[in-house]
Amino acid sequence: MKLSQRVLTMPESSIRKLTPLADEAKKAGRRIYHLNIGQPDLPTPKSFFAGINNFREEVLSYCPSPGLPKLLEVFSAYYQHRGIPLTPRELLVTNGGSEALLFSFMAVCDHGDEILVPEPFYTSYSLTASALGIKLCPVPTFVEDGFHLPERGEFVKRITPRTRALLVTNPGNPTGTVYTQEEMKMLAGLVQDFDLFLIADEVYREFVYEGEYKSFLEFPSLWERVLLVDSISKRFSACGARIGSLACKNPKVMRQLYKLAETRLAVAMVEQMGAIALAETPAEYFREANLEYKRRRDVSIAKLQSIPGVYCRRPEGAFYILARLPVVDAEEFAAWLLRDFNLDGASVMLAPANGFYLTPERGRDEVRIAYVLREEDLANAFTILGEGLRVYNSTVASPVVSS
Amino acid sequence: MKLSQRVLTMPESSIRKLTPLADEAKKAGRRIYHLNIGQPDLPTPKSFFAGINNFREEVLSYCPSPGLPKLLEVFSAYYQHRGIPLTPRELLVTNGGSEALLFSFMAVCDHGDEILVPEPFYTSYSLTASALGIKLCPVPTFVEDGFHLPERGEFVKRITPRTRALLVTNPGNPTGTVYTQEEMKMLAGLVQDFDLFLIADEVYREFVYEGEYKSFLEFPSLWERVLLVDSISKRFSACGARIGSLACKNPKVMRQLYKLAETRLAVAMVEQMGAIALAETPAEYFREANLEYKRRRDVSIAKLQSIPGVYCRRPEGAFYILARLPVVDAEEFAAWLLRDFNLDGASVMLAPANGFYLTPERGRDEVRIAYVLREEDLANAFTILGEGLRVYNSTVASPVVSS
Repeated sequence: MKLSQRVLTMPESSIRKLTPLADEAKKAGRRIYHLNIGQPDLPTPKSFFAGINNFREEVLSYCPSPGLPKLLEVFSAYYQHRGIPLTPRELLVTNGGSEALLFSFMAVCDHGDEILVPEPFYTSYSLTASALGIKLCPVPTFVEDGFHLPERGEFVKRITPRTRALLVTNPGNPTGTVYTQEEMKMLAGLVQDFDLFLIADEVYREFVYEGEYKSFLEFPSLWERVLLVDSISKRFSACGARIGSLACKNPKVMRQLYKLAETRLAVAMVEQMGAIALAETPAEYFREANLEYKRRRDVSIAKLQSIPGVYCRRPEGAFYILARLPVVDAEEFAAWLLRDFNLDGASVMLAPANGFYLTPERGRDEVRIAYVLREEDLANAFTILGEGLRVYNSTVASPVVSS
Repeated sequence: MKLSQRVLTMPESSIRKLTPLADEAKKAGRRIYHLNIGQPDLPTPKSFFAGINNFREEVLSYCPSPGLPKLLEVFSAYYQHRGIPLTPRELLVTNGGSEALLFSFMAVCDHGDEILVPEPFYTSYSLTASALGIKLCPVPTFVEDGFHLPERGEFVKRITPRTRALLVTNPGNPTGTVYTQEEMKMLAGLVQDFDLFLIADEVYREFVYEGEYKSFLEFPSLWERVLLVDSISKRFSACGARIGSLACKNPKVMRQLYKLAETRLAVAMVEQMGAIALAETPAEYFREANLEYKRRRDVSIAKLQSIPGVYCRRPEGAFYILARLPVVDAEEFAAWLLRDFNLDGASVMLAPANGFYLTPERGRDEVRIAYVLREEDLANAFTILGEGLRVYNSTVASPVVSS
């Protein structure tokens, strides 16, 4: 009996290693501020629950594989309103953004094929690629540049005959970076010149605090080659619904995606009913959410930048900050915070950034901070972090001078 | 831009080709009896809807990747009650049986590895295998034997150094066959002697009409090597919920399955709440469902066997009959029934069996019949089928003498 290399080589997440320590700390009566979770804390619109609470069928039957027609219309209307021209036939409802990603990878890559991706990137990309025997080729970006893109040559030199697609997250996770129009045009030219697919993960579209945001599907020249990965998880604080979508304006691609959708028959019916009802969410919901997160970002950045040795730049979107800490190993520090430190009975949980890098050693001194706590909690959490760093570096580790 | 071979080589389902014809017929005012759909028509227990109708959270957050702890307990209690010793830690909640299958394949096979499977088998097996670059090696079974298993040598001669697992569906889809204790023991010996995993799809466990039923997990000698694929879809007439489960008593395997579960973060929360409430379903629900399906099976078999040239044996479980028809090409006949035939304004939709075979030409004259209609509808449907066959063979095709 042999387990597959595809699972054996998948890394276990560092968060998984830290969770037992956080549980221990809570058992010991300590309060833990979770800066590690990429899950919005704002209320899910009540319409979602109204949508499911009146749901009652004699038989809970399979939905059509591409999704409930009404939900496809709701998604189409949302995109049209946003200036993204997608018809219901160009859309699939998926089991969260995760399945949209899985289907994208399956549709464009065979075993051994390659996908370019700016690094750091969302952990599930490498796990999904491992599971499918696909090679991710990271293009490095850096905290000093606010994780903005390097010049085109850095992408070009990593393109091989096996390269099939470029994968980008915009706004970014774990970086919060929103690409400029110039960066998007560079990428658009690149995928056209090298005839690649562009897998665009835009699940944080509604969270942009600086400048104008454009979807990659707003470039008509890219219509045949963009696979748009999306989800209601962040947009509506509805991570638990597991309702995502995958869109493509190329009918040849959609035909193959339909086949993939048939392999798993359908997406959960009740959650789709809830997602349909979200269409009634007033525009203020997004405006208020945006203002709230922008305030939190500004509080977080100010507090972080005031901690000696911490380096980060102000990200333009999402609800993440990737920060460099004055430590050698952020995972060890994160474990120490949970295990050995508290300030007035409270500590913080961080997401070590090594899980967002494929290149060995990169991100070892970085952490991702998700500002999905209320402002006063954020302020407390950063006070604890600052004090934790001071104590750690004066008693546990030799201090590291930030470069 | 190149689409992957893994999707391009996936066949489009024959049902997909027939569906537009059925839609046309309905538009023309004809009634279509659906004998093609593997979806139970009995009511979903009301407790499911009670479970979701009181559900209201401030934030609809991610469930734990392995599933809601309460649902894992409910599943564990169900199995224990059935004599299948599974603890919550040996279970994962999945997006339907489909995802349980996907994870099983991913965990035990790399690209190019092989899985033995008695043929005919459920279509999604070959689609999922294609998507992952896994080779299914069919072991033929035949309508004359009621699709019971051939002798061990037929399995042994197909085992190669790349064979990693044996996949069985018991009770069977599309066959309705329930394996005898002797057949199960033969398979148990086989996987032990050749050190293979046994992927046991037992989603039709509650639908057995003859003899005693045993799960493969009731053989303690198999505990380390069985991956149990399951679902509430058939058990509770709840296909639309997309709640399945994957179980394994081998902690080394479970550890890898947890990683796969993390790649897609979580399963839909609301449907899990409904599934938890299903624990309250009284035992009569299963007894009544069983009696109802048994009656339907007997009506269907009697009617089918009375049609000249039709050959089938009485299956022991599930709600399917795989029957040989006196036609050369059952797919053409099924299309003709929808396009060109009606009896008093009604016709039937059949599932051509070619989709359940990987071996070319096998099953060409067979159809799968799902007896998920009320008895009087079933009787009408088979009258139409018989008359359709008579007309088809006397006017359209040259009649074929059944061997």
